[in-house]
Amino acid sequence: MANGTATHGFELDDLHLRASMHPGAVTIPAAFALAEAYGKTPGAFLTAIITGYEVGLRIGIAVGLGHGLRGHHTTGTVGTLAAAAAGANLLGLSAEAATDALGIAATQAAGLHGARTGAMSKRFHAGRAAQSGILAAVLAKRGFTGSRTALEKSFAGFFSTMCDTVDAPAAYAELGSRWELTEVGFKAYASCGSTHTTVDAIDRLMQRGVAADNLRELRIFMSRKAVSNVGWKYVPAGVVAAQMNCYYTSAVKLLDGAVFIEQFDESHLADPAVMALIQRIRIAHEPAFDAGGAATRHAVRVEAELNDGRVCTESIDQRRGTSKYPLTREDIERKFRGLAKVALPAAAVEKIIELVARLDELNDMEPLAALMRGAEIESPASMRVAPIPARVA
Amino acid sequence: MANGTATHGFELDDLHLRASMHPGAVTIPAAFALAEAYGKTPGAFLTAIITGYEVGLRIGIAVGLGHGLRGHHTTGTVGTLAAAAAGANLLGLSAEAATDALGIAATQAAGLHGARTGAMSKRFHAGRAAQSGILAAVLAKRGFTGSRTALEKSFAGFFSTMCDTVDAPAAYAELGSRWELTEVGFKAYASCGSTHTTVDAIDRLMQRGVAADNLRELRIFMSRKAVSNVGWKYVPAGVVAAQMNCYYTSAVKLLDGAVFIEQFDESHLADPAVMALIQRIRIAHEPAFDAGGAATRHAVRVEAELNDGRVCTESIDQRRGTSKYPLTREDIERKFRGLAKVALPAAAVEKIIELVARLDELNDMEPLAALMRGAEIESPASMRVAPIPARVA
Repeated sequence: MANGTATHGFELDDLHLRASMHPGAVTIPAAFALAEAYGKTPGAFLTAIITGYEVGLRIGIAVGLGHGLRGHHTTGTVGTLAAAAAGANLLGLSAEAATDALGIAATQAAGLHGARTGAMSKRFHAGRAAQSGILAAVLAKRGFTGSRTALEKSFAGFFSTMCDTVDAPAAYAELGSRWELTEVGFKAYASCGSTHTTVDAIDRLMQRGVAADNLRELRIFMSRKAVSNVGWKYVPAGVVAAQMNCYYTSAVKLLDGAVFIEQFDESHLADPAVMALIQRIRIAHEPAFDAGGAATRHAVRVEAELNDGRVCTESIDQRRGTSKYPLTREDIERKFRGLAKVALPAAAVEKIIELVARLDELNDMEPLAALMRGAEIESPASMRVAPIPARVA
Repeated sequence: MANGTATHGFELDDLHLRASMHPGAVTIPAAFALAEAYGKTPGAFLTAIITGYEVGLRIGIAVGLGHGLRGHHTTGTVGTLAAAAAGANLLGLSAEAATDALGIAATQAAGLHGARTGAMSKRFHAGRAAQSGILAAVLAKRGFTGSRTALEKSFAGFFSTMCDTVDAPAAYAELGSRWELTEVGFKAYASCGSTHTTVDAIDRLMQRGVAADNLRELRIFMSRKAVSNVGWKYVPAGVVAAQMNCYYTSAVKLLDGAVFIEQFDESHLADPAVMALIQRIRIAHEPAFDAGGAATRHAVRVEAELNDGRVCTESIDQRRGTSKYPLTREDIERKFRGLAKVALPAAAVEKIIELVARLDELNDMEPLAALMRGAEIESPASMRVAPIPARVA
């Protein structure tokens, strides 16, 4: 549970757009914990992750946006099923027991989007889903039964209770030939996905000489959905609010050249330089970006008017890190180094990168697990939660 | 979690009719675990239980039958809130932290009624809810925040997401002067509540001389809802099916004089004597019992036609164990002895009864907890689940 919470804990995890879901934060911690506990090989661990991703993403596609619009947080709800599927695969359950595991998972599926605004609890949906999925798989392995029609049951099933409309055939379409896993994107920046195309545009503008000190005004044009997500007036109100606000992320990109964890340290959220620069940033709605629906909802046009009167413009259709503009292996390794350095010595970080690169050739998980256990994670104060006493947990 | 699962595990726990909820199975295990872990007094433990009951029952009343008709199992979902409220009270949380605890609980609330038919997972909804509530209270105590409008938030709150209609003012009506706790009933028999009035009627008939061997035909008349719940043709298909079937419960009452745990041992479910007697039992719909709605849905008229041609009739409007016909202290102690004897020596059982009777005078929970830990619970095979390895849990 702790690993899932940490993974989802800084708006930096992976995302599947069509399933509206962050599969890694639920699937990988569940598979890792079970692989460690049951001594499974790294190959089995990787296969389990693929299973969890495919099952979760396909159910996420089937329930569609309506599930989230009812108020459910898909990463928490469908994530429980993804984690259970990964666990069922890893533990080698029979088809019947795997179905039991999905049934036990479905009846634990939880997570309300209402937790998103100003509460830490949103960040633990993924961790709790991973834990529920582990519990489902372990109980099923030991003969505990779940409803075998828990998803599709016409009364009181997962679909009928927690979704208004469901496209169940979408879950099965091209199963085994089309891999949803390949559509999963990574986040290059530690902020809401709707801010990323603007960061990409500012990056290009900066390469053309735009900087905080020669800028008269920055004008950002985005879709209605993006304006509603990230285009509201910035007032310092905690880390999450800053991560969800494009005025803030644009200002720190211009000032620091980066939008990563350092930019969201509590001490920076009301930085006078940031607050002053925000006065020169305008965000406006561009109706042309609404026409394309989900495909263009992240598209932006950013105009930088300089003190000398020049105007530089950059347009970005899709953010870096999506399957269209994938991050390179070097990008991902750089991101990992940036995150891991707060918890692990540099030598351990490099060794982990090396082990992960050839994980499928290793015989057991222990060398990797040992490296990852090597140090207590030093979380930012806003995320820090003291461990629960063992007697209670 | 184990205690909650065990409590809800044999259709013998308490019930609040208007809230459609079994409050004891979620509230008491949560309060007990926290009282033990944090060294709280029995007085504080009892106050916490009352708090959990009132909060849970009142939210259950507010969400009404519609919550269950959507497919949610109220004992699992609202039960999480009840357990969190009990925990927040016991840990002495501030109003803000208690609200956080309810928010963290709301976003974990889960349990699908679909698990009811033929799966063990239904039985662990209460245990999981107790565990989620404990987690919510402990996290809130340690400063983890939840949404403070998690229940009533218009988008993605507990009410808006998981209920179709909500009567929120009902939750607050006469708060502190009317105690929903006093409306909680106990189950006298280990079967679905809809079978209990028939058991009561047969009991009276047996006092008048009716017996399995002088009976030509037993005719049971009940409401449409009761027929649909428990009046379907009996085919041996596991413990839960027998507990939910009025042919079975009537036959064992006539044969054994009791409908308790022994009557649902796996080895008895297809007993030839039971199966033969069921051939002489008829269940029919009595439209007069539909007119009163929830108030009369358990009403029955039972006619026993004897081999000598005599017909004896008994009518029962409400089952024993409700607040209208409460069980006596002796009834409850007898029920406890019948259940506890499978796990504890008789002397320990009597000592527990004595301690519980004066619990509010004791200084700490340890003597009671020690007695209850005294032996491993020997569960019926159908409920037995091996413990999860500590590394995984």
